[in-house]
Formats: sequence, C-alpha cells, structure tokens
Amino acid sequence: MRNPQLNKHGELTHLISTEGLSRDILQHILDTAQTFVPLAERDVKKVPLLRGKSVFNLFFENSTRTRTTFEIAATRLSADVFNLNINVSSAAKGETLLDTIANLSAMQADIFVVRHESSGAPYLIARHVSPDVHVINAGDGRHAHPTQALLDMYTIRHFKKSFSNLTVAIVGDVLHSRVARSNIHALTTLGVAEVRVIAPLTLLPSGLAEMGVKTYTDMAQGLKDVDVIIMLRLQNERMRGALLPSSHEYFKHFGLTQEKLAYAKPDALVMHPGPMNRGVEIESAVADGPQSVILNQVTFGIAVRMAVMSIVAGASS
Amino acid sequence: MRNPQLNKHGELTHLISTEGLSRDILQHILDTAQTFVPLAERDVKKVPLLRGKSVFNLFFENSTRTRTTFEIAATRLSADVFNLNINVSSAAKGETLLDTIANLSAMQADIFVVRHESSGAPYLIARHVSPDVHVINAGDGRHAHPTQALLDMYTIRHFKKSFSNLTVAIVGDVLHSRVARSNIHALTTLGVAEVRVIAPLTLLPSGLAEMGVKTYTDMAQGLKDVDVIIMLRLQNERMRGALLPSSHEYFKHFGLTQEKLAYAKPDALVMHPGPMNRGVEIESAVADGPQSVILNQVTFGIAVRMAVMSIVAGASS
Amino acid sequence: MRNPQLNKHGELTHLISTEGLSRDILQHILDTAQTFVPLAERDVKKVPLLRGKSVFNLFFENSTRTRTTFEIAATRLSADVFNLNINVSSAAKGETLLDTIANLSAMQADIFVVRHESSGAPYLIARHVSPDVHVINAGDGRHAHPTQALLDMYTIRHFKKSFSNLTVAIVGDVLHSRVARSNIHALTTLGVAEVRVIAPLTLLPSGLAEMGVKTYTDMAQGLKDVDVIIMLRLQNERMRGALLPSSHEYFKHFGLTQEKLAYAKPDALVMHPGPMNRGVEIESAVADGPQSVILNQVTFGIAVRMAVMSIVAGASS
Repeated sequence: MRNPQLNKHGELTHLISTEGLSRDILQHILDTAQTFVPLAERDVKKVPLLRGKSVFNLFFENSTRTRTTFEIAATRLSADVFNLNINVSSAAKGETLLDTIANLSAMQADIFVVRHESSGAPYLIARHVSPDVHVINAGDGRHAHPTQALLDMYTIRHFKKSFSNLTVAIVGDVLHSRVARSNIHALTTLGVAEVRVIAPLTLLPSGLAEMGVKTYTDMAQGLKDVDVIIMLRLQNERMRGALLPSSHEYFKHFGLTQEKLAYAKPDALVMHPGPMNRGVEIESAVADGPQSVILNQVTFGIAVRMAVMSIVAGASS
Repeated sequence: MRNPQLNKHGELTHLISTEGLSRDILQHILDTAQTFVPLAERDVKKVPLLRGKSVFNLFFENSTRTRTTFEIAATRLSADVFNLNINVSSAAKGETLLDTIANLSAMQADIFVVRHESSGAPYLIARHVSPDVHVINAGDGRHAHPTQALLDMYTIRHFKKSFSNLTVAIVGDVLHSRVARSNIHALTTLGVAEVRVIAPLTLLPSGLAEMGVKTYTDMAQGLKDVDVIIMLRLQNERMRGALLPSSHEYFKHFGLTQEKLAYAKPDALVMHPGPMNRGVEIESAVADGPQSVILNQVTFGIAVRMAVMSIVAGASS
Repeated sequence: MRNPQLNKHGELTHLISTEGLSRDILQHILDTAQTFVPLAERDVKKVPLLRGKSVFNLFFENSTRTRTTFEIAATRLSADVFNLNINVSSAAKGETLLDTIANLSAMQADIFVVRHESSGAPYLIARHVSPDVHVINAGDGRHAHPTQALLDMYTIRHFKKSFSNLTVAIVGDVLHSRVARSNIHALTTLGVAEVRVIAPLTLLPSGLAEMGVKTYTDMAQGLKDVDVIIMLRLQNERMRGALLPSSHEYFKHFGLTQEKLAYAKPDALVMHPGPMNRGVEIESAVADGPQSVILNQVTFGIAVRMAVMSIVAGASS
C-alpha cells in the first residue's frame, strides 16, 4: 500500500507522521528549511510562495504556541491564515469531524493544520480531502507530532552536521509522548548510530526493542557518552495518577541537572520541545546553560514549518 | 419610507434582510457573485477590490463557521479583517451596543458584519453608523439571515438556470428559522412559481398564507413534484421543550430519507444550510447523494459574501 | 541609571510608562501621530512602514477593545499581527512569563504589545528581550497605560493647540487608575499650568501633592474654570467593596452632569477612556454633548499607536 502521505509520484502531499517517510524526504524538508532560516535576518521576513493560498489552523485541542508557530510560518509564506478553534464551534453543534472538513474544503482550503486529541484524526481527514488539499499534523493524541520531530532533526543537523555517528537519548514520559514516537522514527530513518530512551519503568512503552531503541531506567547509564539529549515535557496530570510518585521524586531521578548532564559528552546538546517545567524535568542551570539549544529549536521550528507547507502545497495527489 | 438598506440613489448600502429588496438588487448580487466564483480555481484566489478597507466581524453570538466565511470573503477581497468576539468583552463591561459601535466606527471601520441573538440589532446599528460605514447582517435572532438566503438563491439559479417555473419546499423548524424567513422573501421576489413550507403544526408560524406560501404537515404531500428542497437545521434545544416529542419521532415524520425524496421530481435539489444533524433532519444517503448540493452552497457562499461586501462598499448613503 | 525605555542614543525603544519620558520624546510621538491622522480619509488606509515585521499582541488580561486598537494600528502599518490570549495557553501549562517571552522572541518577534494584570510585567519583559525587540505597554495593573495617556495628550493638543495655559481635571477612581497615573506624568511633562484630581476621599491616593497635583473631593470646586475634564471609568467591582456606597450615590456626587459641567470653562473638553458607564460616572447628555471629544480620542488612538510602533521599531538598544 502506498504511504498515505505521498502522492502517486512519491511526493509529500500530507505530513501526518515521520513514520514511513524516506530519508530522502526527511532530508528534502531539512534542506528546504535551511533556505528559510536566513529570512529571519532580513528586514521583510516574508516570501510570496503561498500568496493567495488559504491555510486553516484547525485546533481541536488548545495549543496557542503551536498554533502561533504555524500561523507565523504561513504568514511568512504570504498565505492567508484562518484560525478555527473547533471545540467551541461545530463540534459543540454535533457536526461530525468529516462534515466540518468537507465544509471547510468547500471554502477552497489549501492546507489544513490539524491538532486533535484523538490519534489518527489527521490521517482520517487526509483520507477524505480532495487531492489539492493538504493536511499537516500538528499533534494527534499519543500518535505523532511530526513537525516537532523535524525541527528537532534540523537542530541536531545544524549543530552536529551529520547524523551517522550520533547517540541520542530521549528522556521522560515516553509512554505518552507523541514527540518521542515521531523523533524515534525520524532519528532511525536518518541513520543515527544509537537511539536510547530513559524513563521510569511505568513510563516505558513496550515495543521499543523492535524499533531498535535501547531502554534505560537510570540516567547515569542512559546518558553515558550521548551526543544529544532530548528532554520530554512531563504532563502534570500524570503526577496525580499512579504512574509517578511526585514531581520532587521525578526530578531527583530523571530531572536533567548539571550533575547528570556530566555523564554525556562535553559537547552534548540539550533539547526540550517546551513548554518547560523548570525544576521538574530540567533544572534552570541546564535549560539556560551553554549546551542548551532549546530556543534554537523554536527559531528553526518556523523555518521547518515553512518548508513543510511549501513542499506539500507544491505537490498534488 | 425609504428602505433602510438603500442609499438615496437606491443602491444597496447595508444588507439587513432580503425583505424589501427588489428583484433587480437580488439579481445584481447574484450576478456579481458569479464573477467571483472562478477565482477559486485560480492560483492566487484574491482580488484587490477592498484593499486597505477594514472589515469588523462583530459576533455577539458565537458562530465560528459563519464568521470564517465572512473572514475568507473579506480576505479574498484584500480587506483587513478584525474579529471581535463581543460577548466576552465590552458587553461584559456594561457598555451599550451603540457605544461599542460608535467606538469601532471611530476606528475607521468600513464594514461591520454583525451576528446578534436579538432580532433587529443589525438594523439598529445600521441606523446609527455614519454614511460611509456599511452593515451586513450575519444572522439576527429569528429575524433574518440574508447572506444564507442569497447563497441559496445562487445555488438554485446555478443548477436550475431560472426561478420562474420552480416549486420550492422549505422543511423543518420554520417557526424559529431566520433562514426560512429570508429564503421565503427572496424566493417570492425572484418569482418562483410556488413556495411551500413543511413542518409539524407546532413549528408552523402564522402569517405564511399572507406571504403566498402553502403549508403542509405531511412530507408526502408537501414534497410532491417539487424542484428544490431546503432542509432546515433542527436546533437540539427545541427537542427538550414541548414543541417536539423526540428526534427519533421527528426523523420518522420529517427527516429527509431517500424514500421521501422520491416524492419530489427526480432532479430535485437537496439543500441544507449546515451544520447538519445526520439522522435527525436528513439521512446520510440523501446528504451525500447525487441530488445533494450542500457543499456547493458552501462554495457559492464565499462568492456571494464577496459580492455583498464589494457592492455595499461601493455605495454610500 | 538610563531610562529603561531608551536606547543608548536616547531614543525610545520601549514604551512602558509616560513617567520619565522627556517633553521632546512625548512631542515627537504626538508629531508622528499627526502624520498618520490623514490616512483615515484615504481610500487605502495603510502605509508600508512595518511590512514584514511581526507584532505580537500578548494579552494576559482580556481586553478586546484595546487589543483591537493595536491590531488595527499594526495592520495599517502593514505589519503581521499575531494575537495571543495567554491566560488560556502557556500560563495554564505552568510556563514562566520569561520563558513564554523567550520562546516568542525566538520566533523573531519585532514588537510585543503587552497587557498584564501585574504592575511591572512589561518592564520585566523589556529587560529580558534582545535589543531588536520592542515592548509596548498596553496597560499593567495599576501602574501605567501610556498609549491611553498619549492619545489623551494628542486630543488635548488637537483641540487646545498648546498645553501651557491649561488646567486639567482628572475625575474618579484615581486610586486604582493606571490611566490617571500615566496622564498625570504626561500632563506635567508637557507643561500644563495645573493638574487637578477630583475623587472621593477613599479613592484618592497619597503622594499626589509631591507630583504637583491639587486634590479635590468636591466637583464644584475642582471643576471650576478647568479647560479639560478627563473622566475615569468606575470599575463596577469597586462598588461591592467598602470604598463606595452605591453607583447612585457616586453619580450624585461625582457623575459628570450638564449642571456640574457648567463649573468648567464654556469650551472645556470632556474626555473618557471608555468603555463608559452611562449614568454612573457620566450622564448621556454630556457624553454625547457638544463638548465631548470621546470618539475623537478613539480615532486619534489609532494614529498614536501607529506612531509609537513605528518609532520604537526604528530604534534599537
């Protein structure tokens, strides 16, 4: 079966997941993003690539920051952006997801940026839109967050030049993290030497070994000699459940401190998708320290989203 | 008394209601909309007609979809659009409606698109703005929803070419429907052969006979040989009252099924203003069937709203 | 210590407060605003001064009207505007204010327009942004509301030509008013002859005498022969506390009626920052009367905000 993200020419027409995308496609996105990074230094930070196109931000789950990054990216491509906070509108009126999409498509949408609390919603939408409409997943349930993974890959490539000799550790609540899933797929496809996951036993999903990922429950062992550390945000709501004892305990064992960072290589990158819980998954000395590239991730995120939008808009099924 | 929607030259300066508008004016709107429909196929879906103009979307009643259609229409005319969700702002601070309008007018608004839960609010506003400010009613109470009626007229004309020999049935909660009222006025003015209304007795308003409308409480009789069926959305909140027994009962008697659709002419159009309650007022086989033009309505709705905006902005009182 | 609003060349790089700004800088803002006022009469009400710049409206406290004035001003300068309603996003996720700002800065913001319920928040932000990012205070706690004060100054200058011989009275809840504080600083710097404050004893702050302000608790005395009356909005929530007996009592003593207005000079201006509580701090006959310039304030407010944005964007720390 053809990957649903590709058209019949093998070009990217939707971005739903990093899973199943070839190394060529991932690198094409990163290369395209690289052309947009210098825009930020220019007086007029815009290019006319998507002029007259309509981008709909469909956020069924609230996320002002992620929505804003897509809004900025689309605006800098000169597209017209329409923000729809869906949970307070059609959904409340009992309309089905597919009817909402069909209606918006009939308004001549070009790109849907979709965030949804249900895994698979962007894929469902992509399957039902017409060939000239493109869907970009901005995070769906526990499934995927491909633009976050791509900006992470961009950041790593920017600082480390090549993926082939890298050992990358992903630390935290991997079980519930769409960021972790998307990153594992991207890192594996781009050919890093080793992917590690470090988490409490209760937050370690099964099946990681089959993906070629090494698992650790101890930071000293897991961080040893790694080149890149990707910290995950700890959802506060997990704390109240049975999965974790307390944020204090979590920080003691898995919070990234300068002391634990010393296990990694001296030039290891520290990454975090934001928003950070300082003092829970990361201490401020590390978050603001010389190895942190957390704000670079944000900057590159705009360029990566511009790249994804311009690539899919250039492709038709 | 002069129609408050017209300036002293008889040109449309506000759109408050289809009631009282001449056939010439309605046809001028439809003709203008027709020039905008092909835009959707173009690469850059925009024209510079309203460049530098300020359109304010004043939604005192939440409706993301309707607001979005106006936002798209204004944006494709190159206007600047400002969305104001009024119920959470000035209204909460105790400011009067007319003070809110006076303030926004002082910011050099060109067009106000107004949705309000009170019938007559857009007219009240239109009476108080300066001559170079234009008001478009996006739905007020049970009174009127003129752009919905106009897009319905556009859709009918597109598929049926002429109004003169048509029998049109409006089905559902006519009592509470601003869409039904606006459609009855438009259809009558445009000279259809016959307008019918089909509804449970409890949802049939009085005064329809005076408007030249035939009333039915039975779908078999009401749909017989009609050319166009306009289904109305059933507001869920009606169900809880004494007006209707249950959505199941309603569907049985008034829901549009393939079986009931067979009473109409074989090429009868099926229309619905959305959002649909599938299985309540319409079954999916009909909504998605070959006679349904529901998504065409949405597409034409953008062109019709562009037409209304560009026409009123060209006229001064 | 250098004024934190100025760069090393003494140019305005942030607008946090009217306090500490020189007469030259205030007049430069008013002069620049004057060049934007005629735009409103033009067919295309835009200039390309900030094309390709990104303005972020960061409203930690809801205020649709103030946000809209900044959105309009930025749009008319051709900037791209991104509205962030922060209280429902990052703040809810436990992110710190400075992390939120650092993240948005990393998206290449040019200007942050900040409203915050905490006094000092815009200053805190200004201290932490990079030199090419500019902060404009849109109201912080009880501290300052400098653009409101500047538009008030513009309005006074427009109608009175010069500040030097004027007596200006500020009436109402001065204790809680950031508008009053910012106006007192601006009026004093611009060299009016006399600033008066009229308020119930419970709403009179201490320290006014040190600022050169005369205080009154009686309207007949306080309004005697003044040239300008700046009414303040009475926050309804004050009524419920111990500070005020009732809105009826307040209106009787401090509400601006035609009768009390007669104490002022015959050509005295009546001003109000909006939204008005008619019948509480001002009666309609005065609000809508010939001496009211309340709607002029709104119009000039757009030009003043355009001036502030274009000035700070031209300056770097």
